[in-house]
Amino acid sequence: MRDVAVIGIGQTKIDEHWDKSLRELAGDAALAAMAEAGVTKVSNVYVGNMLSEGANLQAQLGGLIADWIGQRYSEAVKIESACSSGSAAFRAGFLAVASGEVDVALAVGVEKMTDSPGSEITSSLATAADADWEVEQGLSFVALNALIMKRYLYEYGWAAEDFAEFSINAHENALSNPNARFQLPISKSSYSKSPLICDPINLLDASPIGDGAAAVVLVPANTVSTEAPRIVVAGSAAATDAIAIHSRKSPLWLQAAEISAKKAYAQAGIGPEQIDVFEYHDAFTIVAALSLEAAGFAAPGRGPALAKEGDIKIGGRIPVATLGGLKARGHPVGATGLYQIVEVIQQLRGNAGQTQVTNPEFGMAQNIGGSGSNIVTHIFQRLE
Amino acid sequence: MRDVAVIGIGQTKIDEHWDKSLRELAGDAALAAMAEAGVTKVSNVYVGNMLSEGANLQAQLGGLIADWIGQRYSEAVKIESACSSGSAAFRAGFLAVASGEVDVALAVGVEKMTDSPGSEITSSLATAADADWEVEQGLSFVALNALIMKRYLYEYGWAAEDFAEFSINAHENALSNPNARFQLPISKSSYSKSPLICDPINLLDASPIGDGAAAVVLVPANTVSTEAPRIVVAGSAAATDAIAIHSRKSPLWLQAAEISAKKAYAQAGIGPEQIDVFEYHDAFTIVAALSLEAAGFAAPGRGPALAKEGDIKIGGRIPVATLGGLKARGHPVGATGLYQIVEVIQQLRGNAGQTQVTNPEFGMAQNIGGSGSNIVTHIFQRLE
Repeated sequence: MRDVAVIGIGQTKIDEHWDKSLRELAGDAALAAMAEAGVTKVSNVYVGNMLSEGANLQAQLGGLIADWIGQRYSEAVKIESACSSGSAAFRAGFLAVASGEVDVALAVGVEKMTDSPGSEITSSLATAADADWEVEQGLSFVALNALIMKRYLYEYGWAAEDFAEFSINAHENALSNPNARFQLPISKSSYSKSPLICDPINLLDASPIGDGAAAVVLVPANTVSTEAPRIVVAGSAAATDAIAIHSRKSPLWLQAAEISAKKAYAQAGIGPEQIDVFEYHDAFTIVAALSLEAAGFAAPGRGPALAKEGDIKIGGRIPVATLGGLKARGHPVGATGLYQIVEVIQQLRGNAGQTQVTNPEFGMAQNIGGSGSNIVTHIFQRLE
Repeated sequence: MRDVAVIGIGQTKIDEHWDKSLRELAGDAALAAMAEAGVTKVSNVYVGNMLSEGANLQAQLGGLIADWIGQRYSEAVKIESACSSGSAAFRAGFLAVASGEVDVALAVGVEKMTDSPGSEITSSLATAADADWEVEQGLSFVALNALIMKRYLYEYGWAAEDFAEFSINAHENALSNPNARFQLPISKSSYSKSPLICDPINLLDASPIGDGAAAVVLVPANTVSTEAPRIVVAGSAAATDAIAIHSRKSPLWLQAAEISAKKAYAQAGIGPEQIDVFEYHDAFTIVAALSLEAAGFAAPGRGPALAKEGDIKIGGRIPVATLGGLKARGHPVGATGLYQIVEVIQQLRGNAGQTQVTNPEFGMAQNIGGSGSNIVTHIFQRLE
């Protein structure tokens, strides 16, 4: 397999884009990535998207978007694994380039959630859970995560308030990110006063939906000039777990996160201690905690300690959600994985603005589909 | 890139499987393929499916099916490109194995259309057309194909009846296929009497929907014993075109079929004259004609002549739909591409029963998404 480099990134602001169609959003991000990469032609387009068929009444986004960005006749498909669709699309592009068959691939994640002619979004999001065994019982997606959080609090003795710093940190980091949905600080007090959505998850534990798209261009690393720093894929791995939480070994352990992270660390030849920035999947604060644990940054049950002690802040032991995370940047589900990757690359390039981490070499993005059933981990390295 | 072989195939009968869930259907085909291949573990699962999110209220089929077939923790995603999702999933498995990263991949196509709790199927199928420019006008998917057929008749001077032999041949070939939805012969007279669905497409021009799944196991070719004949992937290519028909160069030419077929021929080092069996995408008889033309078996406008002159029959110049095709085997949309591939392999193995083609060496499967916007072509070779 060939080494693969990322040479262009693009993203739209996450917002209620009522003036932009699905293809326009994807096109804005994709064309920005291509312009930055200096390429006018890509042979393969991989689209990460979860909801288009139900919410936007549009299937085959591959052909739709390839055509819209001037790449008619190229190869193009949609890759779907619920909320990890974006990074799964990236991984498909990575494998296509690494295989030797494809020289320029584009991965673009897109989701349009706030203005959808099709099914209602809470119902659409519930398709990420097990239709026969979970949704059939009337459980929404937030309810599933609330059950996990409740058990976590009981098992490890935390209070819900101990999760506040995950959200406070995310909102703080989003303040200077022009692409974030929310640029407003929150405090421990606003967290405590925020209304319960599904006990014990309150409004500020939960990431907001939104419309948005993010994209990258991938090429063989040996085609990129070594005169300037290059960003290469040092690790790429994915794993699944049972979709229905009751079928898993433990509802409190993200087995697929552990497996994919370990594979990615092994490929990169490093451990969690070498990761300088970690874009994790803080769809809910409980997921942030579970993610830090499964990826090796905290012992089981100790995730919230990292937040409480400031370890997750810029300058801390493991900076996370450095441009706002799902919580404050926003969570356009099928696009999120590519936002995470774009942000890691911004950090490794030194282009992360006011929340830049100092001289990062390795950055990790971990994208979680369902309540932990499909998890993709990527490690990127800055080669000087 | 490594050469890739197919070592196991599996399929369910296409039917109204009201007693089987989506995962059970996929599992039946996948486990049959794995049993035949003699493998109990696959590292990567690629699921071809179009409609699950809207029709079955279930996203992330990757994790769902991997878990159901005992492959929890493996890597698994859904690939979607409308009606070519099945072959796109096969191609993802092919690239993963060819890249050198994956040693055993499973590709499974599944669709459950006749008993869906979600959106109504005609609406779901319309998501394969352009939501903003075609469906918005009230066009269903059959209406789009009817417009193409009407123009074809006008442009090339054929009568609708000249398409009858495509369907008659398909039904004849399905008679002895136990997995086909229809095992009943049709005649020129029944074709002529069949009711119009959307002028000029009548009921017997159109393929039936159905529930079903088909699967294959892919491995590096050099891991397969050369003592018996092996079936290898000799060509694999995909291309897109504009989704909206009005945006294409011509509504009567499948550009993406031509591009992907030419690439696949070049990879295999052959031309159309060496293809011994062709599983084409006869979703409607007009698509059968366009497909034969774009893949190089007939001049533009001459597709129906192949049917009328018997060239498409078993023993003819280019046998098609040898186990019933979409028309009589049935068209469970996201699964169809894998049914086509499974059938080509049945032929190359000499296991096609009463419709066996004599000593085939090369077989081709061409799978069409949308009204021609995402087309995947595979050529398989029997190596003695």
